[in-house]
Amino acid sequence: MISIERVRAAAERARPYVLRSPLVPVEGALLKAECLQPTGCFKVRGFFAAAMQAREVFGDRVAKGLITVSAGNAAQACAYVARELGVPCRVVMYETAPSPKIEGVKRWGGQPLLMPRDKVLEWLASEAWRREPELFLHPFADPEVIAGHGGIGLELLEQVPDLERVLVPVGGGGLISGIASAIKGTRPEIEVIGVQSDGYPLWQKAFEAGGPVSIKPETIADGTTAPFDPRMFELLKEGVDRWLIVAEPRLKAAIPELASAGKLVAEGAGALAYAALEQVEPGPKTVAVVSGGNIEPRLLATLLSPD
Amino acid sequence: MISIERVRAAAERARPYVLRSPLVPVEGALLKAECLQPTGCFKVRGFFAAAMQAREVFGDRVAKGLITVSAGNAAQACAYVARELGVPCRVVMYETAPSPKIEGVKRWGGQPLLMPRDKVLEWLASEAWRREPELFLHPFADPEVIAGHGGIGLELLEQVPDLERVLVPVGGGGLISGIASAIKGTRPEIEVIGVQSDGYPLWQKAFEAGGPVSIKPETIADGTTAPFDPRMFELLKEGVDRWLIVAEPRLKAAIPELASAGKLVAEGAGALAYAALEQVEPGPKTVAVVSGGNIEPRLLATLLSPD
Repeated sequence: MISIERVRAAAERARPYVLRSPLVPVEGALLKAECLQPTGCFKVRGFFAAAMQAREVFGDRVAKGLITVSAGNAAQACAYVARELGVPCRVVMYETAPSPKIEGVKRWGGQPLLMPRDKVLEWLASEAWRREPELFLHPFADPEVIAGHGGIGLELLEQVPDLERVLVPVGGGGLISGIASAIKGTRPEIEVIGVQSDGYPLWQKAFEAGGPVSIKPETIADGTTAPFDPRMFELLKEGVDRWLIVAEPRLKAAIPELASAGKLVAEGAGALAYAALEQVEPGPKTVAVVSGGNIEPRLLATLLSPD
Repeated sequence: MISIERVRAAAERARPYVLRSPLVPVEGALLKAECLQPTGCFKVRGFFAAAMQAREVFGDRVAKGLITVSAGNAAQACAYVARELGVPCRVVMYETAPSPKIEGVKRWGGQPLLMPRDKVLEWLASEAWRREPELFLHPFADPEVIAGHGGIGLELLEQVPDLERVLVPVGGGGLISGIASAIKGTRPEIEVIGVQSDGYPLWQKAFEAGGPVSIKPETIADGTTAPFDPRMFELLKEGVDRWLIVAEPRLKAAIPELASAGKLVAEGAGALAYAALEQVEPGPKTVAVVSGGNIEPRLLATLLSPD
């Protein structure tokens, strides 16, 4: 895991730019509303932390801009951070990314580079960014990005002194690794639970297989469809106490429930931890992280009023 | 207006039970997300303040329960507060109230008494509550309820030290009177702007007429359809610097915009202040209060995906 000192330093760098997100109570849990962050997702925490540190260490490189690869939320965060720093930004994205995510990148002045999923994964696996002039920020495996996400864990320790359990949606694994680093570094007895959809249970399968697996995503949690990464495998092995899998129909029902009970707009990935609450034993003080809210309005409408 | 000392005392009584609501940034303003309060609306602030004070002053009366009259949000707040105090609750409501509001009252153990709108207004005007055993809390004109809502103003002064302007949706007038009392009592130069829909512009018409008016509501902002009240007329005259009217089509567009840009679920009344932002001069540091989020899921779905 990432050291608690590194998490604290990263969170401190990001702090002026991000929301100390509120806890919204629902039956049996508190929701950590990261969907209220600028760009509608937790990702700004890690990208601010990493970009600020990079500027301190090698300022000239950052001046040429930032580049990343993303299912959509890291893309928006990268563009938003670049705008704040006054530098350009390009993002390699799935051509199937939801339109709010592509439009979000453009809104913050970033340039989306749309590719089919296999080309995106190849671009990432072949480290194609090494040929580009901009500073590359890895969307989930950059230790500084992970440390920045850890700010959520630090806030939880302050906001919920009697915290016993936290449920976190997992895609690439950066969010939960950051939260686990913050929490386990201080209060290792707090249970950290990773949640994925049965439409893309990558990490459960990977831990069953003991190594790399590849799955075709069939989930509305598009934000969780990152590929296997051996560095993340090691971090998740250390930091995650338990895995829960949410069935897609349950996930689809959770989104209107969150709108109704919590007044929060959640995307598929954002609703995963809340959707898994029914699987945990009642009693312990529990937080579910609502990671993001960048959902297609039409999909949200359909889920709200299915007939 | 209500004295700043009374606002401070009321807000302090309510504080342990309510959310210090976050500010969510959108283009040109910050949104004070009161829709994230328990019961999905700011009303818990005033009802906790008033009920706690009443219990201190005449405990026996509160033990018989609470009763109020409400378009829906005060109803839920009253039921929620009664449950926290362990006492019964009944609420006189419009029989046309949106189902989430009626269901909300039941969810917190309250008993809705559904009546046609004219009967509700008659019940209120004739002070029919005097014949009931429970303690009556007036949904908007009770000075202690208003003082409790003032907690929003106190929080804004702390959260936004350079605040210059606040836009607030207006129904009965309790919310804006509380906020104005808190703000004008400390920083009278901050502009307090009241917002209503052109489907129920009660206070604009009342100030034009110089006294009581009655209008048939034709608005999705059902939470603003309270009747004229002479006490509120005086408070609003003192506390509100300017009135803005939002056209219904603009209000309907504002709800999906809030979901997309702010990841917040707002009801009609809740979206009014945000919808009015396009009418104010850009520049001054501005907050728009998102007062509540209890909207019918089907209406929200229709507004998100109109065709």
